[in-house]
Amino acid sequence: MASYFISGASRGIGLGFCEALAKRPASDVAIVFAGARTITDALKELASSSNGRVEIVPMDVTKADDIKTAALQVEKSLHGKGLDVLFNNAGVCNFMSQGIQHMDDLDSTLHVNVTSAHLVTRGLLPLLQKGNLKKVINITSTFGSIGMARKFMQAPTPAYKISKAALNMLTVQYALSFEEEGFTFVAVTPGWVKTDLGGQYADLDVDISVKAVMEVVDRVTAADNGKFLDVHVPGWENNPGLNQYAGGEPEW
Amino acid sequence: MASYFISGASRGIGLGFCEALAKRPASDVAIVFAGARTITDALKELASSSNGRVEIVPMDVTKADDIKTAALQVEKSLHGKGLDVLFNNAGVCNFMSQGIQHMDDLDSTLHVNVTSAHLVTRGLLPLLQKGNLKKVINITSTFGSIGMARKFMQAPTPAYKISKAALNMLTVQYALSFEEEGFTFVAVTPGWVKTDLGGQYADLDVDISVKAVMEVVDRVTAADNGKFLDVHVPGWENNPGLNQYAGGEPEW
Repeated sequence: MASYFISGASRGIGLGFCEALAKRPASDVAIVFAGARTITDALKELASSSNGRVEIVPMDVTKADDIKTAALQVEKSLHGKGLDVLFNNAGVCNFMSQGIQHMDDLDSTLHVNVTSAHLVTRGLLPLLQKGNLKKVINITSTFGSIGMARKFMQAPTPAYKISKAALNMLTVQYALSFEEEGFTFVAVTPGWVKTDLGGQYADLDVDISVKAVMEVVDRVTAADNGKFLDVHVPGWENNPGLNQYAGGEPEW
Repeated sequence: MASYFISGASRGIGLGFCEALAKRPASDVAIVFAGARTITDALKELASSSNGRVEIVPMDVTKADDIKTAALQVEKSLHGKGLDVLFNNAGVCNFMSQGIQHMDDLDSTLHVNVTSAHLVTRGLLPLLQKGNLKKVINITSTFGSIGMARKFMQAPTPAYKISKAALNMLTVQYALSFEEEGFTFVAVTPGWVKTDLGGQYADLDVDISVKAVMEVVDRVTAADNGKFLDVHVPGWENNPGLNQYAGGEPEW
């Protein structure tokens, strides 16, 4: 009977994580908190058909006050229990096709993709410390791999890449800080997914990526604390393209 | 006859770079632009005793307007010539001894240490493109190495570490974007230096670090574009402590 909190749950893979968890038996998944700035019809529908197992938590991750209110709501709904798994999934990605010297979204992208993950984590930390699983899943990207940067140099998203490298370091800093408490902080790349963020030419359908990420989430233990993990999508290992989804650990 | 721009030149290693360059013959170093928010007595003294070879450029790197004004001053002083070498040296580092969950300086540290390096680089880019050397030296830290994070886990400076990982990725993104123009963007760690930022217990005196960084700056060519480089300080290779200063390439 585990409890989950997913940020950025209004659409894309965030919504997909909530849907996948809601399909699991109630004996496995007690409650899924769907943190969302925009309450989309799809999320409303999921919540209303979930017998109370998907609870919407209105929250703009960039606003500290929203996070405080959200944490109070989660605490109340957990009735004294802890929170088991947090997905820091909310994120933004802008295209900057004129070149890095025209990048004007670095502060805002760093704030949403890095600082907000920090704010949500610390806001829910007391509940996570009371949880049984103590897993924090930071949704990152191989675009955030400094060592692999040449491979992805054609993708005109410099601020996103810089923010995901920073998110990886945030993950490791939290991992080292809370390893003695038995936490598992990991940075997981969901692959390039056909969402509003990833666009229509992306590699993976939402359900494929969600399934692959959930396999990582289920599998990881404190022995994986602080790792950068790629998903495994069968059939992609020998892909001649940029992404292999072979389930390894990308370079930092 | 090369020209240099150093940000954060009021004190510490920034001032040290200006002093070291001013000591070189005028046949080597034509002019050193000392970008500084605070015009310290030490910087004033250096400028006034330099026969016009050290020119103070008042600039707060966090302010876009200041950078525009600074770029115009530099352009004017170069009389149609290009700028050869830029040091993005300005930076901040706060201690957060109560733990990462209390970190409240992430946005501001990312802004100063990452976004400002971007703003200064793009502000001076047209002049660097006209320069002969086309070197951009981003002063980073091994604290920004994600792969080495465990080694430095006791240092309570999470925002600084995250910002330097992000600065490393910014360096690589610029390096890839401008490699065809013959640029050399490198991230150089000056070591742990006895400055206001590094504190009195640091490893290296300012002059030792400055000398070691200048050796890297002089040596690097376009073949080093995009690298993360440690300084070499003779005698430290077999140091049993945290830092070896062996002149290698730290992990990302």
